[in-house]
Amino acid sequence: MLIAPDASPETVLARGRAVLHQQGFSRFMGTELTAFGPGHAELQLPLRAEHQQQHGFAHGGVLGYLADLALTFAGGSALDGNVLTSELKINYVRPAVGERLIARAQCVHAGKTQAVTRCEVYAVSGGIEKLCAAAQGTIVRVPDSKVVPKD
Amino acid sequence: MLIAPDASPETVLARGRAVLHQQGFSRFMGTELTAFGPGHAELQLPLRAEHQQQHGFAHGGVLGYLADLALTFAGGSALDGNVLTSELKINYVRPAVGERLIARAQCVHAGKTQAVTRCEVYAVSGGIEKLCAAAQGTIVRVPDSKVVPKD
Amino acid sequence: MLIAPDASPETVLARGRAVLHQQGFSRFMGTELTAFGPGHAELQLPLRAEHQQQHGFAHGGVLGYLADLALTFAGGSALDGNVLTSELKINYVRPAVGERLIARAQCVHAGKTQAVTRCEVYAVSGGIEKLCAAAQGTIVRVPDSKVVPKD
Amino acid sequence: MLIAPDASPETVLARGRAVLHQQGFSRFMGTELTAFGPGHAELQLPLRAEHQQQHGFAHGGVLGYLADLALTFAGGSALDGNVLTSELKINYVRPAVGERLIARAQCVHAGKTQAVTRCEVYAVSGGIEKLCAAAQGTIVRVPDSKVVPKD
Repeated sequence: MLIAPDASPETVLARGRAVLHQQGFSRFMGTELTAFGPGHAELQLPLRAEHQQQHGFAHGGVLGYLADLALTFAGGSALDGNVLTSELKINYVRPAVGERLIARAQCVHAGKTQAVTRCEVYAVSGGIEKLCAAAQGTIVRVPDSKVVPKD
Repeated sequence: MLIAPDASPETVLARGRAVLHQQGFSRFMGTELTAFGPGHAELQLPLRAEHQQQHGFAHGGVLGYLADLALTFAGGSALDGNVLTSELKINYVRPAVGERLIARAQCVHAGKTQAVTRCEVYAVSGGIEKLCAAAQGTIVRVPDSKVVPKD
Repeated sequence: MLIAPDASPETVLARGRAVLHQQGFSRFMGTELTAFGPGHAELQLPLRAEHQQQHGFAHGGVLGYLADLALTFAGGSALDGNVLTSELKINYVRPAVGERLIARAQCVHAGKTQAVTRCEVYAVSGGIEKLCAAAQGTIVRVPDSKVVPKD
Repeated sequence: MLIAPDASPETVLARGRAVLHQQGFSRFMGTELTAFGPGHAELQLPLRAEHQQQHGFAHGGVLGYLADLALTFAGGSALDGNVLTSELKINYVRPAVGERLIARAQCVHAGKTQAVTRCEVYAVSGGIEKLCAAAQGTIVRVPDSKVVPKD
């Protein structure tokens, strides 16, 4: 997720979208990267029946996935190189119903090898955003050699 | 997720599977409930290309979803009534590659209205289980009226 | 930590300080409540040698305590009645050195019985604030009967 | 917190106690290291009035401190070198009353540079242990140069 210091905002967003598109799971989910820049990221997920739990809400795991991804992108934009999520915590504050989810993440602190990021997940229903979850996590930079699957 | 005190283990497992089957997202993911009883739960997820991130590992959001679900089932089996996940934290300790994921959750403490549960997520490759994530969360009992979607 | 809706800011702050003063541990630590209102709180801790770990930094447990307290006060100001901290997570981002710690907490979401709050802890050295930790937690309202110690 | 591979259990425990004794805050609190070995640690804290919050329970910050310390010692015994706590989360499950607290921590996973550890905190009253908190955190190895306070 290298971001050249002199890259234009459009180039940075396009680069982020390319990474997102490489994720089979994110294509499967239908996730969109709608903003991406130094220390922040916004992702959106149009909700479908396949995203629900038994009561018709978006599944907690869907919110957790979107939060995880937003935390990682916000951290990745602040660190130089490949990144992985080390850990995160999420609080669910309201059942998520509506047309789409929006996750917005910000970098709280970035060092050389790790960043702490925060994220809020909103459900949008009839154009109204309601906060559904808040997350905080640690994003770490990893050597390129670490991102090749091995035993 | 009511479990009658005198239900047989087979009945309890069948009841848990019925709840899981009601979740559109869990059907979409292909999740299986392989063990379920008072204060514990085991879930398995056969891995497909759709579950991967850009490096060929299972996506962190997939592990997070499975951990969330296992925490909730373990808590739900210990609390009397409908439950929701209030919050959770997850540490990723190793990239997940293999044929399937297994999440095993245990109840650490259960009161009248909430339970604290823990979970480990393993990737199984060639029959060998390797720990990939460890989670801890809070499961809360909710009134039936709260599980009907509303604005 | 009942806050009458029509209480003046001075009254609210005085009430918060009275609660803080009832805590033997907070007197022992030397903690000061410097701001307190609907959904927010600021606490300060003048650092002494007794607060250090083996490398001369403020002990992580000291930062954790101050974060916990700030999260609780911010949640308590938003909920009606006695409150307890249900859980929290904290990320340490920089060793804490200086004359004092400042913890600022804000309420992210408050329902009828619980609030999710966030906090940042800064070390102040030579008048310069540096972020040392970021926390997020859940504060729950408890019946008066629950706050009397019992077996 | 270097532990020579061939050190006797007594030597390892003595080394851990020496580190604990270097912590001004732990001396201030009165903490004792009662067990310490590869991947595990047990700490005890005799409770005094100075450890209480306003309802006579041990302050949450005291439990958090003890959990933090136990997580760090368990991680430090598994990693080679100086360690710091990167982050932790703690769930409070019961008010803590009694003569002492006991925190027992275990290493869940240790790599070369970081370990994930878990801890349970018990209050002991009349010889009976009751679980009061459960924690999980990340301990990271740091270069010696990082543990000298600097700006």
